[in-house]
Amino acid sequence: MLFLESNLGDPGLYPGTQHLHDSVVQMLLSILHGDGLMGGRILSGGSEANITALWAYRNSRQRRQVLAPETAHYSVGTAADLLGMNLSYVRVDDSYAMSVDDLEAKISSEKTAVVVAMAGTTEHGQIDPVDEIQLVCARHGVPLHVDAAFGGLVFPFLSRIGYRKRLPAFDFTLAGVTSITVDPHKMGMATAPSGGLLLRNPTLLEAIAQPTTYLSSESLASILGTRCSAGVASAYAMFRFYGINGYMKLLQGCMQNAERLAAQLKDVGFRLAIEPISPVVCIRLDDEDLAKRTQRELGQRNWLVSRTTQPHGIRVVMMPHLQGAIIPDFVSTLRSIVL
Amino acid sequence: MLFLESNLGDPGLYPGTQHLHDSVVQMLLSILHGDGLMGGRILSGGSEANITALWAYRNSRQRRQVLAPETAHYSVGTAADLLGMNLSYVRVDDSYAMSVDDLEAKISSEKTAVVVAMAGTTEHGQIDPVDEIQLVCARHGVPLHVDAAFGGLVFPFLSRIGYRKRLPAFDFTLAGVTSITVDPHKMGMATAPSGGLLLRNPTLLEAIAQPTTYLSSESLASILGTRCSAGVASAYAMFRFYGINGYMKLLQGCMQNAERLAAQLKDVGFRLAIEPISPVVCIRLDDEDLAKRTQRELGQRNWLVSRTTQPHGIRVVMMPHLQGAIIPDFVSTLRSIVL
Repeated sequence: MLFLESNLGDPGLYPGTQHLHDSVVQMLLSILHGDGLMGGRILSGGSEANITALWAYRNSRQRRQVLAPETAHYSVGTAADLLGMNLSYVRVDDSYAMSVDDLEAKISSEKTAVVVAMAGTTEHGQIDPVDEIQLVCARHGVPLHVDAAFGGLVFPFLSRIGYRKRLPAFDFTLAGVTSITVDPHKMGMATAPSGGLLLRNPTLLEAIAQPTTYLSSESLASILGTRCSAGVASAYAMFRFYGINGYMKLLQGCMQNAERLAAQLKDVGFRLAIEPISPVVCIRLDDEDLAKRTQRELGQRNWLVSRTTQPHGIRVVMMPHLQGAIIPDFVSTLRSIVL
Repeated sequence: MLFLESNLGDPGLYPGTQHLHDSVVQMLLSILHGDGLMGGRILSGGSEANITALWAYRNSRQRRQVLAPETAHYSVGTAADLLGMNLSYVRVDDSYAMSVDDLEAKISSEKTAVVVAMAGTTEHGQIDPVDEIQLVCARHGVPLHVDAAFGGLVFPFLSRIGYRKRLPAFDFTLAGVTSITVDPHKMGMATAPSGGLLLRNPTLLEAIAQPTTYLSSESLASILGTRCSAGVASAYAMFRFYGINGYMKLLQGCMQNAERLAAQLKDVGFRLAIEPISPVVCIRLDDEDLAKRTQRELGQRNWLVSRTTQPHGIRVVMMPHLQGAIIPDFVSTLRSIVL
């Protein structure tokens, strides 16, 4: 609350805020195995982070093709339209993870500006096989942006608690990963606006710098001018308050609830898009009208959940504030609507 | 502070916040003679508002040329780079207002997507002759976006107090004005993020809509996804707290201080870019190195002011929190550095 009026867009006037910003970037880099990297920016959210990354790749590489999985967040489509880039979707397999074969067929050293991979898809919480994707990208000299807006503060903690499913690496441990979107205002528990863009090479942003003599810096490589810093202060506070152990505990609780929900849904006959590997449960309905009606009727009973399209269904994100005790009521309500 | 966690990007989950948002839009429309218009959006600031407007004009008109005065805010340059549009600058006259003759020479029905005019230039607080510009635009069938990020909540109140200089109209009273940027988080005294984009025809934004099934709305015509609503609640509160009379009094005080500063500067031999018509005082130094050194040395003495480039100099914005009593000290400090 103390930071509602300080402007991250004018760091000369707010050096303390800038220091918090840089600390948050370092903490995010550390969580995603980017220690020693100096590049990053806390922006307003995942959309701005993805758009900024694609803008920088377009300008620095003078290429216009973006390859992203069919499951990419809609902001990748926004970015492509905004930036005049050509977005080609890479097919996903039965588990809604990017098909490396289809990527291999579509990638082009001459045309592709950047490949986007997902770590935590919006609809399923799935991770693309980033470890394999990065090899394909590196072989073609194409940068790889990982949209871990949701998963970037989920999977590192699930891995640390020895979560039983083997999760592919997706962060800076992989040499082919050149940038990552990761949002403290999602599973980092920070308030918005707080979305991170981490860069292996911070000079990438020079490709989008605009001169701005009237601010305290001489140029600004950013879509937004004034940037509310409350989300940065909040991220700093949350990181210090929870720490690695706190987030591990938080995510363990979310994951237990997700598995409990998944089990109870299956018990009464629902099918899931994938077995949850993160606290996202995607319930197949396989019919658009049924999905719309279900979402609407759930909403009328104050269950505010999202609709999915791949497959048509309903998505539940088991956030930390949700109590496991509500699950049976949700499942029976859903059952009464659908089955 | 109560609104730090509510997301304007998901209005179905936050209907009360959306209601505040719509109220703020209506109040802004009312101040800018747009009563009865239904179009507007509170975004993160003037940069996002300008970029969003240009994006919508590019898509809806399938043209790529932007015409803007040499004094346009840098976000117009950001927008042009981001959107792949061609920004051509229109010359300004001796008073740093757009030359209508030069606009006439450059505008093209076939090529020009939009003309941008300024109401409150960043460096001088100047208004372009929007009343004449809109006629040129209308004659060529080209939309006119007015960037009144700063001036939109300055000039309406200065006009109402019968401020002695005749100010050109720049708002929806002029039929050729199709959209306006106006920022509550500048002279509206609201906290960031709170920048308004007002539209004569709200369907303009359909040209940039992206499908977003997983949110409570089916599509989103917006650069950002998650949008912190604290600035909207703050704008609502400020508008209700100050009211028209409160802002008139506030602006009168700012203007008196600007005129006092201008007079004292001229008394000791400084020259101004223009006689202030808003609470912006632009001090000519006419030398880039001198301007840089002056800004730096003022900063070392805790006078944090901006540098200008047209002309090279120093800019002071007399914001409401500044007391007139500090002016003599500033003038003598500036004198000791420069003269």
